[in-house]
Amino acid sequence: MDFISVSKNDGIATITLSRGKVNALNEIMVEQLNDCFTELETDRKTDSVILTGRGKFFSFGFDIPEFMGYSKEDFIRYLTKFTGLYTRIFLFPKPVIAALNGHTIAGGCMLATACDYRVMVSDRSKISLNEINFGSSVFAGYAEMLGFCVGWKNAETILYNGAMYSGDRALQLGLIDMVSSRDDLMNEADKKARDLGGKDNSAFSSIKGLLRKPVAERMVRREKKSIQEFVNIWYSEKTWEELKKIGIKI
Amino acid sequence: MDFISVSKNDGIATITLSRGKVNALNEIMVEQLNDCFTELETDRKTDSVILTGRGKFFSFGFDIPEFMGYSKEDFIRYLTKFTGLYTRIFLFPKPVIAALNGHTIAGGCMLATACDYRVMVSDRSKISLNEINFGSSVFAGYAEMLGFCVGWKNAETILYNGAMYSGDRALQLGLIDMVSSRDDLMNEADKKARDLGGKDNSAFSSIKGLLRKPVAERMVRREKKSIQEFVNIWYSEKTWEELKKIGIKI
Amino acid sequence: MDFISVSKNDGIATITLSRGKVNALNEIMVEQLNDCFTELETDRKTDSVILTGRGKFFSFGFDIPEFMGYSKEDFIRYLTKFTGLYTRIFLFPKPVIAALNGHTIAGGCMLATACDYRVMVSDRSKISLNEINFGSSVFAGYAEMLGFCVGWKNAETILYNGAMYSGDRALQLGLIDMVSSRDDLMNEADKKARDLGGKDNSAFSSIKGLLRKPVAERMVRREKKSIQEFVNIWYSEKTWEELKKIGIKI
Repeated sequence: MDFISVSKNDGIATITLSRGKVNALNEIMVEQLNDCFTELETDRKTDSVILTGRGKFFSFGFDIPEFMGYSKEDFIRYLTKFTGLYTRIFLFPKPVIAALNGHTIAGGCMLATACDYRVMVSDRSKISLNEINFGSSVFAGYAEMLGFCVGWKNAETILYNGAMYSGDRALQLGLIDMVSSRDDLMNEADKKARDLGGKDNSAFSSIKGLLRKPVAERMVRREKKSIQEFVNIWYSEKTWEELKKIGIKI
Repeated sequence: MDFISVSKNDGIATITLSRGKVNALNEIMVEQLNDCFTELETDRKTDSVILTGRGKFFSFGFDIPEFMGYSKEDFIRYLTKFTGLYTRIFLFPKPVIAALNGHTIAGGCMLATACDYRVMVSDRSKISLNEINFGSSVFAGYAEMLGFCVGWKNAETILYNGAMYSGDRALQLGLIDMVSSRDDLMNEADKKARDLGGKDNSAFSSIKGLLRKPVAERMVRREKKSIQEFVNIWYSEKTWEELKKIGIKI
Repeated sequence: MDFISVSKNDGIATITLSRGKVNALNEIMVEQLNDCFTELETDRKTDSVILTGRGKFFSFGFDIPEFMGYSKEDFIRYLTKFTGLYTRIFLFPKPVIAALNGHTIAGGCMLATACDYRVMVSDRSKISLNEINFGSSVFAGYAEMLGFCVGWKNAETILYNGAMYSGDRALQLGLIDMVSSRDDLMNEADKKARDLGGKDNSAFSSIKGLLRKPVAERMVRREKKSIQEFVNIWYSEKTWEELKKIGIKI
């Protein structure tokens, strides 16, 4: 079963997260995304990529009820794949545009941050790194990406508050790059994908590497230890209680 | 004799700098602050900390007349303690809010920068890193903290000009996070301390570490050499003349 | 033949790029600039430096037609000198102010970014890192300097778009620090040079080093490999075709 769908049109590959009502991320979906980026990296007909979601969510983030059945070891395996996925998107040698069609939460926001450009729908959808509010930490690699994207002070504001931001507020914080009406969302993403995809790809990927590889090296160096710390907090009694509440709600 | 006072109320520990008219920092005061943070780190009744000052100053910075009686070796010992103090506050595992009740100068501003959030009174009080104006350098660790807090370009503007900024201008530069009337200052600091202190502490301290530990590692690695450079400039003939003038004024 | 002219007045040395109509950079000019900064570094009568250009251009960037006659080895030698020049300006122990008198393009913009402060004329002159638009990459050292100057997100915007920015837009992006009328340009640069040059030089150069040396260390560490990558792209068939078009135009 496929939890993502891919369409290609005129040099642009569009990946749509398509799993249940909220596009919650699980291990198979992360693997499918990884495989998909592998294929697109060498696909000569793909100049740029759009990442979007089906329905009212871009993504809710991790599928918490599913992961509550995971052992620590299994969860570490998943997190290694997930952090590997965002690192890969962060360094992807072609432009990746996030078209945030709806709520973009936690792990969903992490994938969006890894992209080169984020357009978000201007309706009541929210974007949030809300981990702290259910007693969870984030990852060292994500801290590096977020600091790169929004600056360190804004990264602190976003991660300490765990607030649900509207598109307009997210734009001020640098968490997204553009707000768009629902009708125009895919057009705007398409325009940006066409613009960046139209640049000389050798030049684009070289410049992207010059800017991002030092960040990615720090991400990779720090990630394993940070996953361990994340897991220890995730399985602590207090956080587990909070996770169970979320599990019941969705 | 105590140069700081500490009160605890409902999960919030408030440290008040209380030394003379301008809360000038000397070695004993720095030791007392260090001891105080040691105690608060493991105090189960303390969820967050407010750092403020008594009177019209948050702090004037170093007690220059007192340090003019120090030998180079003694001054290096003091600076090692002082830079250790701001590094410790920068990494403190609970939220630390600076309530800037008045002028916040040089070393006083360094302590404020180490905190997680700064509210400053909106009267005629000024905040400044004015070292360059009396021929003094700063520290590598402080350069790292300031760049983290306000970005590198603003860090250059602030340190090269050495200007006395009003709260409003400091807010634009990112040197503080909020301006408040004198009457509301402690309420605002309290609100923020309660807000951040109310988050899951394991999650908060983990996220803070993910964002700040790489900075702190650079701070520690570079500090010893930078203290030596600072001291060489401090004891140069030209700077010494400027320091004597300040000594007479206060 | 001299491609730069230098005048000294009241503690300020003004270097004027003076080569043809567009002050295109070639190897001799870069060597002359290097020699000039060497002389000014120890010149006791020079407190600060202004870097400007003659005519309607600050600088067009590299003299592309001239470099199209270079072998790869020769071009690598030139690029090593050029990146050494901007690294040297970036770390120069006295204030360096760029007075951008006209179009400031590619390599010209790189020299401007290395300075401490940039004033740009408010007429129709443009500033641009347009490398991507003719299929060229930039350098690792330049990516580091630009990220330091404008933040990483703006660095991406500037380098991926390769757009021609007006002074006002460049100011918003942090690419320059001030816009000025043509009549006031040299006065404004002079004022800033006098202001920063009037600070204690030991303190200024120490603080500048604290902020910039860690960046410069990364620049130097990454530069050689990045020059190799730059050259490989520059001599690729597609980019070479674009370069030939530019060569015909100027």
